[in-house]
Amino acid sequence: MTPPSSNHAHPSGIVTLLTDFGLGDWYVGAVKGAVLSIAPLATLVDITHTVPPQDVHHGAYVLGQAWRTFAPGTVHLAAVDPGVGTARRGLVVCAGGHLFVGPDNGLFTHVLWPRLVAQRPGVPFLAPLRMRLPRRCRAYVLDRPRYWRKRVSATFHARDVFGPVAAHLAAGASPDELGTATDEVTALYVPRAKRTGDALRGVVLHVDRFGNLVTSIAGETLGTRAVAVTLAGKTVQGLARTYGEAVGLSALIGSNGYLEIALPNGSAASELGAGVGEAVVVRRTT
Amino acid sequence: MTPPSSNHAHPSGIVTLLTDFGLGDWYVGAVKGAVLSIAPLATLVDITHTVPPQDVHHGAYVLGQAWRTFAPGTVHLAAVDPGVGTARRGLVVCAGGHLFVGPDNGLFTHVLWPRLVAQRPGVPFLAPLRMRLPRRCRAYVLDRPRYWRKRVSATFHARDVFGPVAAHLAAGASPDELGTATDEVTALYVPRAKRTGDALRGVVLHVDRFGNLVTSIAGETLGTRAVAVTLAGKTVQGLARTYGEAVGLSALIGSNGYLEIALPNGSAASELGAGVGEAVVVRRTT
Amino acid sequence: MTPPSSNHAHPSGIVTLLTDFGLGDWYVGAVKGAVLSIAPLATLVDITHTVPPQDVHHGAYVLGQAWRTFAPGTVHLAAVDPGVGTARRGLVVCAGGHLFVGPDNGLFTHVLWPRLVAQRPGVPFLAPLRMRLPRRCRAYVLDRPRYWRKRVSATFHARDVFGPVAAHLAAGASPDELGTATDEVTALYVPRAKRTGDALRGVVLHVDRFGNLVTSIAGETLGTRAVAVTLAGKTVQGLARTYGEAVGLSALIGSNGYLEIALPNGSAASELGAGVGEAVVVRRTT
Repeated sequence: MTPPSSNHAHPSGIVTLLTDFGLGDWYVGAVKGAVLSIAPLATLVDITHTVPPQDVHHGAYVLGQAWRTFAPGTVHLAAVDPGVGTARRGLVVCAGGHLFVGPDNGLFTHVLWPRLVAQRPGVPFLAPLRMRLPRRCRAYVLDRPRYWRKRVSATFHARDVFGPVAAHLAAGASPDELGTATDEVTALYVPRAKRTGDALRGVVLHVDRFGNLVTSIAGETLGTRAVAVTLAGKTVQGLARTYGEAVGLSALIGSNGYLEIALPNGSAASELGAGVGEAVVVRRTT
Repeated sequence: MTPPSSNHAHPSGIVTLLTDFGLGDWYVGAVKGAVLSIAPLATLVDITHTVPPQDVHHGAYVLGQAWRTFAPGTVHLAAVDPGVGTARRGLVVCAGGHLFVGPDNGLFTHVLWPRLVAQRPGVPFLAPLRMRLPRRCRAYVLDRPRYWRKRVSATFHARDVFGPVAAHLAAGASPDELGTATDEVTALYVPRAKRTGDALRGVVLHVDRFGNLVTSIAGETLGTRAVAVTLAGKTVQGLARTYGEAVGLSALIGSNGYLEIALPNGSAASELGAGVGEAVVVRRTT
Repeated sequence: MTPPSSNHAHPSGIVTLLTDFGLGDWYVGAVKGAVLSIAPLATLVDITHTVPPQDVHHGAYVLGQAWRTFAPGTVHLAAVDPGVGTARRGLVVCAGGHLFVGPDNGLFTHVLWPRLVAQRPGVPFLAPLRMRLPRRCRAYVLDRPRYWRKRVSATFHARDVFGPVAAHLAAGASPDELGTATDEVTALYVPRAKRTGDALRGVVLHVDRFGNLVTSIAGETLGTRAVAVTLAGKTVQGLARTYGEAVGLSALIGSNGYLEIALPNGSAASELGAGVGEAVVVRRTT
C-alpha cells in the first residue's frame, strides 16, 4: 500500500518551469501568463529555458537535479516536447511528494530513477523505453480538456495544456482529477555504472556551464579517494575535494553526489573533447 | 463612447518586463528594484531581456504575442529605446484591458494593430508612422515627474520613469493620473498580407529560437490546407498540423494563428538564409 | 557610535541573486528551492547568473550597481566563488541598510567602496587586499552550521550555506545571529581616478551588453562638458547627453554617474578593442 501522503503533499504554491523555448521569445511569457491567470498567487521559478532545442535528456537531467531543494507540494512544469500535438501523452507524475507535468517522452527519467536503472545489454544509451513506475510514484494521463485552455493549439501545449494543469495543481487540485492513472511511462535508458573486475564503468551524463563532465558513477560506490579515472584517453589520479584545491584536470565528487571531471579555470569538456555518452572507467589505485 | 471597463480593469498585480538590456548586466535588476520599491507586492514576470540591441520591431513583435495570456489589469513595461532622453515621448497605452508602459517609438505596434495594417503603397516595411489610436484604445503621454524617481538620468528611463510609472499602475493608479491623453502614437509599418489574383503575399515578421519563420499571413485567411508556400526561392507543398508530423521544410499554422515555415530538428531560417522582411507567397493547389 | 538602524532595516522580503552559474543548468533552481524552503514568502529577483565563470570583479561591479534601487532590508545573495569549500570565509555584510551574503573574495568591493579607493602605488589593478570595513558597515563571518543545510557539500555553498543564510535574513533573523563580527574583509583593488596636471586618469571598469565602456571617472569630478577623452589611442571630444544625440564614438555620463564611452548602434568595446583595465585620460579643452 502506497502511503498517499507522499503523493498529496499540501501545495507549496511554487510552480517551476523548465523548457527549451529560449529566453528571446514570447513563449515563456505566454506560459507564465497562462499559469498566473488560473493561479494568481503561485510563485513561479525558472529552472532553465535554454535546454538545447528538442534535447529531452538534457532537460531530464537538469530537472532530475533541480527539484530536490524545493518544498514538498511543488509543481514542476517541464516542456521539451518535439512530439507536441502528436499521439504522445501528457502526464502528471507524483514522486517524492512533488508533482511533475509535461509530455511522456522521457523528461521524468531522472526524477523517477535517480539512481539510474540496471544494465540492459544491447539497449542503446538514451533509447526510449516503456517502464513500469517505481514504487510510491504515480502517473496520470492528461485527458480532461475542461482543465485546459479553451482552444488548444497543435504546437504549444505548454501554454494550452501543461500550464493550466500545473496551475490547477498549484491551486490545490488533486492529480487524479486531472487525468487517468497509468502504470507505465516513457524513460530514456540511462544505465547505472557497472562493476567488472577491478573497474567501475560509467558514462558522462551531463556537461555543465563550467565544462565539468558529470558522470553516472555515484561517489558512494567508490569507497576510497585512491582511484584513477580514465576518459577520452586521459587518466586522472585521485579525487580532489574542492575546485579550489584541484590542479589541472581533476576528478571530484560533485554537489549532487556523482563523480565529475573538472578543469579549474577552464573547461574539462573542451580540454578532453568529451561530452554526454563518453565512457568513463574508475580503478582503485591502492 | 468607449466603455471605460476595457481600460480600467482592476490591477492584476502583475508587471511584465521586456527589454534589450541583456541578462549579464545590472540594468534589469535596477528596474526591478525601482518597481518593487513602489509596489512591493507586485509579481514581476520577465518576457525577455534579449531583444537584439535597439531592435524595436523585434521587441514589438514579442510583446504583441506575449501579453495575451495574462490576466486583464496586467502592466507591461517595455524598453527598447534607442531614443532614450531625446524628444521621443513616454507613454501609457491602454488596450484589451491591459496597460503598456514605454517609449513612443513603435514598441506597441503589434499590441495596437494585432491584425496588422492595410497596405500603404510606397511606405517601406517597418517605417515609423504616426497613427491614430484604434477604437477602444487609449494613450497618455508621461509628463508628470512626481510619479518618477527623484533624479531622472538621460539614459535610463526604464529605471527612472517607466519602472515607477508601471509600479504606480500595478498599485492601482489610473493611467490618466500619470499623463496627458493623446490620440496618436508611433507605429512601425507592418502591412497585412495582400491578395493579388490567386496569390496571397506577405512577409516574414519574426524568427524564433527554433529558426521558425513566422509570417504576416493569418491562418484563417487560407481557407484550405492545399497550398503551396514559396519563399527564398523554395516552395513547400501543403500544411503540416504539428512539428512532429512535419518532414523536412514544412509550412504550418503556428500557435499564434499565423503561417510559419519550420524545419523539424533544424532551423528553417538557416536552411533558407531568410529573415525578417523576406517575401512569402501562398497559392492554392486545388 | 554607528546607528544600528542602518544595519537592521526591517526585511523587505526580497532576496536578489547574482551568480556565475549560467542559465542552462540546475544550479540556480537548486539555490532558489533552498531559499524558498526556508522563506516561502520571499520575493526572489535575479540580478544576473551570467557573470563570466569565476570573474569575481565582474560580479562585484554588477552587484555594486544593481542593489541601489531596492528597498532597505533587501538581502543580496552573491556567488562567484572559485574558492568554494576552501579556507575562504563566508560573510554577511551590512551596508546602506541592505544585507549581502557570499564569499569573502572581493565580491562586495563596489558595495563597500562605491567611490573606489585611494591610489596605492605599486598595487596591481584588481589585486585582492585585506581592508578595514568602512564606517557604518558591518560584516559577520558565517560560522553557525545550524543555519545551513544539514549536509554541506564542498562545492556548492550557494545552495548549502548562502541560500539558507539569505533566507533566514529575509525571514527576519539578525546578522549577528548567523555569524561572528569581523573588522576586515577582502576587496579587489579598484583605484579612484587620479589627477595629474591637467589630466584625470582612470580605467575601464566594466563593459556592458551594448559594448559601452564604463570607467572609474565620476561625472561630478569633470566640472565641465568641454573635455577630450582618450583611450586605446583614440580621442573623443566633448560629452554627449544621450545615446540618441551621440554620433560615432562618444563620451557621456552614464546612468550610474560615471564617464562611459559608447558607440550608438555599435559596440565601443569592439571598435576600440578595449576592455576592463584599459587606461582612460580626460583633459579639459577650454
